[in-house]
Amino acid sequence: MPPHPAIEQIKQILGSKGWADEDGMLAPHLVDSRGSYQGRCLGLALPATTEEVSRIVTLCAHHRIPIVPQGGNTGRVGGATPDETGTALLINLSRMNNILEIDPEGHAITVEAGCILQNIQQAAADADRFFPLSLGAEGSCQIGGNLASNAGGINVLRYGNTRDLVLGLEAVMPDGRVMNALTALRKDNTGYDLKHLLIGSEGTLGIITKAVLRLFPRPTSQATAFCALDSLDSAVDLLGRARADSGDAVSSFELIPARAVEFASRHVPNTRPPLDDIPDWCVLLEFSGSGAAPSTNKDLESFLEGAFEAGLITDAMIAQNEGQRSDLWRLREAIVAAQKPEGASIKHDISVPVQAVPAFIRQANEAVTEACPGIRPYPFGHVGDGNIHYNLSQPEGMAPAAFKAREEDLHRIVYDITQSLGGSISAEHGIGRKKRDDLARYGDPVSLDLMRAIKKALDPDNIMNPGILLPTETNDNDKKPIRENRP
Amino acid sequence: MPPHPAIEQIKQILGSKGWADEDGMLAPHLVDSRGSYQGRCLGLALPATTEEVSRIVTLCAHHRIPIVPQGGNTGRVGGATPDETGTALLINLSRMNNILEIDPEGHAITVEAGCILQNIQQAAADADRFFPLSLGAEGSCQIGGNLASNAGGINVLRYGNTRDLVLGLEAVMPDGRVMNALTALRKDNTGYDLKHLLIGSEGTLGIITKAVLRLFPRPTSQATAFCALDSLDSAVDLLGRARADSGDAVSSFELIPARAVEFASRHVPNTRPPLDDIPDWCVLLEFSGSGAAPSTNKDLESFLEGAFEAGLITDAMIAQNEGQRSDLWRLREAIVAAQKPEGASIKHDISVPVQAVPAFIRQANEAVTEACPGIRPYPFGHVGDGNIHYNLSQPEGMAPAAFKAREEDLHRIVYDITQSLGGSISAEHGIGRKKRDDLARYGDPVSLDLMRAIKKALDPDNIMNPGILLPTETNDNDKKPIRENRP
Repeated sequence: MPPHPAIEQIKQILGSKGWADEDGMLAPHLVDSRGSYQGRCLGLALPATTEEVSRIVTLCAHHRIPIVPQGGNTGRVGGATPDETGTALLINLSRMNNILEIDPEGHAITVEAGCILQNIQQAAADADRFFPLSLGAEGSCQIGGNLASNAGGINVLRYGNTRDLVLGLEAVMPDGRVMNALTALRKDNTGYDLKHLLIGSEGTLGIITKAVLRLFPRPTSQATAFCALDSLDSAVDLLGRARADSGDAVSSFELIPARAVEFASRHVPNTRPPLDDIPDWCVLLEFSGSGAAPSTNKDLESFLEGAFEAGLITDAMIAQNEGQRSDLWRLREAIVAAQKPEGASIKHDISVPVQAVPAFIRQANEAVTEACPGIRPYPFGHVGDGNIHYNLSQPEGMAPAAFKAREEDLHRIVYDITQSLGGSISAEHGIGRKKRDDLARYGDPVSLDLMRAIKKALDPDNIMNPGILLPTETNDNDKKPIRENRP
Repeated sequence: MPPHPAIEQIKQILGSKGWADEDGMLAPHLVDSRGSYQGRCLGLALPATTEEVSRIVTLCAHHRIPIVPQGGNTGRVGGATPDETGTALLINLSRMNNILEIDPEGHAITVEAGCILQNIQQAAADADRFFPLSLGAEGSCQIGGNLASNAGGINVLRYGNTRDLVLGLEAVMPDGRVMNALTALRKDNTGYDLKHLLIGSEGTLGIITKAVLRLFPRPTSQATAFCALDSLDSAVDLLGRARADSGDAVSSFELIPARAVEFASRHVPNTRPPLDDIPDWCVLLEFSGSGAAPSTNKDLESFLEGAFEAGLITDAMIAQNEGQRSDLWRLREAIVAAQKPEGASIKHDISVPVQAVPAFIRQANEAVTEACPGIRPYPFGHVGDGNIHYNLSQPEGMAPAAFKAREEDLHRIVYDITQSLGGSISAEHGIGRKKRDDLARYGDPVSLDLMRAIKKALDPDNIMNPGILLPTETNDNDKKPIRENRP
């Protein structure tokens, strides 16, 4: 393909540091983190300022060149991967990685979108403050991507999703203009909340370039326990009691099934069962406190005694030091990796109302087992938010490809149950390319029409991350996984 | 004017209980709560179900009849008052006042939009839960109006604005279709967040008919103090220390100037100075705790001792019982009423970044005093959110009308300073009819264009609360206060 005539202009705007089109440089940017989608592009723009982003987008709008915004490229649904036509320009924000201002008194930090999440956490800690967004990819994901996908993670229960951590935004819109809502205000009722519209829009309405984020007092004490549940149902009661008892200081409440402890102990170095007897269902529970309201092991112990007497838990282990606490969290974080050596897997990131989690897991386990005898359900995750990563491992001895061939069937089964319980087919990973058809099937039709109307109003030529998130009205789509997600 | 031909159909849909057009019935619905705007209407629709709302709106869309949605009609900016043409249909949601479901375990309550806020608070309390939205009008405002205007109130510091308390929404869109996003999910990343778009849109994008709201563990302990500040600047430091020290348990942090204590003591029965010497600036501070993290007077006392030693406060009075606590809150709530007998007033509801509050008050006091010697600034309110109700009382002896004649000048002075400090001209009251021109002047032009594009996409015939919130591009407007807001 001859180079697009606008490319020269774009290269001039960006300078040599801001442009790449050699295959070696491009390769890691053209495939998603799960290896499900492989694309091509016109080139990789690496702007260093909002103004450069604005000038490039203006040019692209003029020439109707599709744009794929990209952060750390750690997403789970192919939302930052260009399609295979090679007609799109990839705009990666990684050079815009400055922390612009930190204001401990005002509990706010202003960052460029390309900042790596961990660097923001660290900058907050250095100022004796806490930025609570935390997730597996935090060492490489960028805050712009977290914002575009409204990332979740392990602290949502107490601090909310990414959108709840944002005070203000700056974004380049599809026509190249800069929306300036970069305020540090706690309250601002001056019209439609465009910030919340952009957050979670997966790059389809604009490119987030800067943000003002909320900081919190640093938790100065943590108390962490691994609890053996009497039954799956106990999880919901235990959570309610923990919230009330602790003064709403529950920062994490993670479901861990016996199978995950088993897989992790088998496959992941330095992980082992925290208790002698692991029942079917366990919970990793953490209280966080600070100042005059510390969360101590004594508080946790007295809470767990009550839970034991109420028949909710059968055993528990409280981390006695930072080493034991790390061990518990290492086990939690090993769950994903531990599944890989067990063969092919099929994954879901669903949510239901918190108290429907036990019913969801029971119904889904039964239905997938009926559809695929021997299947090994592997549900884990943020039960405190009603968010279950409902993963499935292949039956032992089955050919991985044969299991993967069942993927769409199994998705359908799991999502039907999710919907019947008032749930969501994407709790925290978003829609991207992967779930676009699913959204067409399970989304509220009026809401989908409204989303399309908004997209059309703000991006009439559909240049901003086309093919992502929004199902077309005719349901035709370009969702073509190009290679299997091999275990 | 002959009745609109659609009126008969609307009356048929609603039945006799659902329609009013006699002057006596209409009168209280045609004027805003501050008495600044007086309108007329085709009639008052009082639907009992979402379906009725949907059918009426469908008819109105067909006939292009403007609609003014109305809740408890307690707004401060004329956003629920029809204009004087009499061409609009008023749709009041007060008959849709059922609490549909309360789920203590799931910490959620599902309500119809016409529920009075206090009834929701009470229903939560009856289920041993807490719904934190709390504001002066809570005995008569409706949750639909709170949602449409993203109300603030006294618990924002800890629990957020109304939008932060919402899990799901149902709304009737301008074409009459029902958007169903009535979920109880804590996490749901399936497309643009339409819930947040509708919240704060002041009835211009649709009529909110139902909501699922978040509940919290009930605070079981409160510790309340009235603090004499060493200086205005101390307020910011005191807040930061209070948050860190209490484990982020500060639920209220309200600025009270000496003038407010003076006016209240003079004019409002049963209010008196909590301390012998009232310095220029005081703060009403409240910690809330529960369970194992109680907020006790002992904690508060030790915190205040530290603040005293650090030179932030010069004196403090801790409420020793519920009676003393009520006295302190009565003083806080008396501030608005206490201003009235002092003559004409001009009011602002601004916010700035929290640490800019002292600079804002100093600059504004100086500037308004220069513009109007003898003016009595009366700034008070939610300093913990950076939200100051920057009210002004007339100079003693000046004619009230002469002072009110200065209203636009003084607004300009105050808003210019607000903007220079990165602030907002409407922190919690919204834009409505009153601040539409101000929004045109002070809003980000790109953001305003985006809002207009969204409005046009969702409501192409502009039938939903026309004339409210959005400045027209040409800046012509129908903002015509018809009578003075007499003290």
